[in-house]
Amino acid sequence: MTRILKIGGSILTDKSRDMAARPDEIRRAAEEIASRPQDLVLVHGAGSFGHIPARRFGLPEKFSPEGLMTTHDCVARLNEMVLQALGEAGVACLPVHPLSCLTLREGRIESFQLGPIKEMLKRGIMPVLHGDVAMDASRGSGIVSGDQLVSYLGKALFAEVVAVGCNVKGVLLFGQPLPLVRRSDLPAIESSLGGSGGVDVTGGMKGKLLELLDLADCGISSLIFDAGREGNIRRALLGEKVGTRVEGSA
Amino acid sequence: MTRILKIGGSILTDKSRDMAARPDEIRRAAEEIASRPQDLVLVHGAGSFGHIPARRFGLPEKFSPEGLMTTHDCVARLNEMVLQALGEAGVACLPVHPLSCLTLREGRIESFQLGPIKEMLKRGIMPVLHGDVAMDASRGSGIVSGDQLVSYLGKALFAEVVAVGCNVKGVLLFGQPLPLVRRSDLPAIESSLGGSGGVDVTGGMKGKLLELLDLADCGISSLIFDAGREGNIRRALLGEKVGTRVEGSA
Repeated sequence: MTRILKIGGSILTDKSRDMAARPDEIRRAAEEIASRPQDLVLVHGAGSFGHIPARRFGLPEKFSPEGLMTTHDCVARLNEMVLQALGEAGVACLPVHPLSCLTLREGRIESFQLGPIKEMLKRGIMPVLHGDVAMDASRGSGIVSGDQLVSYLGKALFAEVVAVGCNVKGVLLFGQPLPLVRRSDLPAIESSLGGSGGVDVTGGMKGKLLELLDLADCGISSLIFDAGREGNIRRALLGEKVGTRVEGSA
Repeated sequence: MTRILKIGGSILTDKSRDMAARPDEIRRAAEEIASRPQDLVLVHGAGSFGHIPARRFGLPEKFSPEGLMTTHDCVARLNEMVLQALGEAGVACLPVHPLSCLTLREGRIESFQLGPIKEMLKRGIMPVLHGDVAMDASRGSGIVSGDQLVSYLGKALFAEVVAVGCNVKGVLLFGQPLPLVRRSDLPAIESSLGGSGGVDVTGGMKGKLLELLDLADCGISSLIFDAGREGNIRRALLGEKVGTRVEGSA
């Protein structure tokens, strides 16, 4: 019965400015989440807290211990703000930092300790993960996006609901959200998928969609929806139709 | 060639007062560590940042999501101070939070993701762990002491040097440090082993010694030394004799 919700960094932060949080949006998202917090894993993007320092230090291509340290420190601060807002909204939650519990190889998750997450869910505590830097066995430095976390956790926890909130209405074609996307649709829409606004080192909408198509290939459908519109997070958590549904092949 | 150093919370904090760091001692410890940072895993105690909130919420006996959250938040703050001091002393380091990467069962480590720690060591980055709260599969809430982390990591990483710095000269008998302790000595000295000063929820000197005797049973000797005396951390890292040596049976 596990559900996974991602809130994009573009909602929680101003992605064009260094470490600029949006406290009102963090609070609103926390309150919507608090309406149905049971059996939920929350993943949030790093926003400007991650993408800007990562780019400054040349991550993930360049191995930079200082870059890893600084970027992690920044995203951990955003994570603290999210946890605090959730706490104030009455949600029992604990942080789970990807840097501490997973390793990558060539940018993909190679090992991931799920024990703490499973145990938290069992005890009614919401694990809160975030896009993060991580150790990469092939390159040294790595970045694990919130979207990759969602896709990995969706499979590993056999999630029933996977909802990915971003700052657009879904997968857009000519400015309109597509109700449904399957892998077979990818060639036709690929060229119109842009990056996200501001600095993004993890692939924007195309990266997001590829992660969710991977998940769909394993039989787990998901939603891409506009988490910036009030009430949508609540609707997505109830399993209502918002945004674009990503499904496996028919 | 891995070495493990623990710096007790009694050195880095005033254990009698809530969240009272000792910035000068944190800086001094960081500078001594910076003299030989290679292949080193650092574990620090939680001091008053952990023991006082843990006791307030009745951890680990009582299951308290709020207690877990508050206590973790406090010890993570101390960890930030330690990382910052190490960074200023020129050490490349990254935090590894036990809450994110291990689970307990009846207070003992049941699963522990070592991938990030091993990868950091391989890349010349010092992993910095700390006494923390953790999810316990049998009780819900758990506490993992820095001493248990040292013992577990000593075995798992086949450590060559294990040095545990505290605020006394070693294992004391009538106020004098014993040069050597083996398990067979335990009955004779047990009654004179006190707790540590201030609030301590993880067992003080007796808890420390039991962890290190476990490690000694696996053939890995360790040192308990006074990390409050200037130069001792440096000496311990060089493998010089300071404090009490804990060894397996002769």
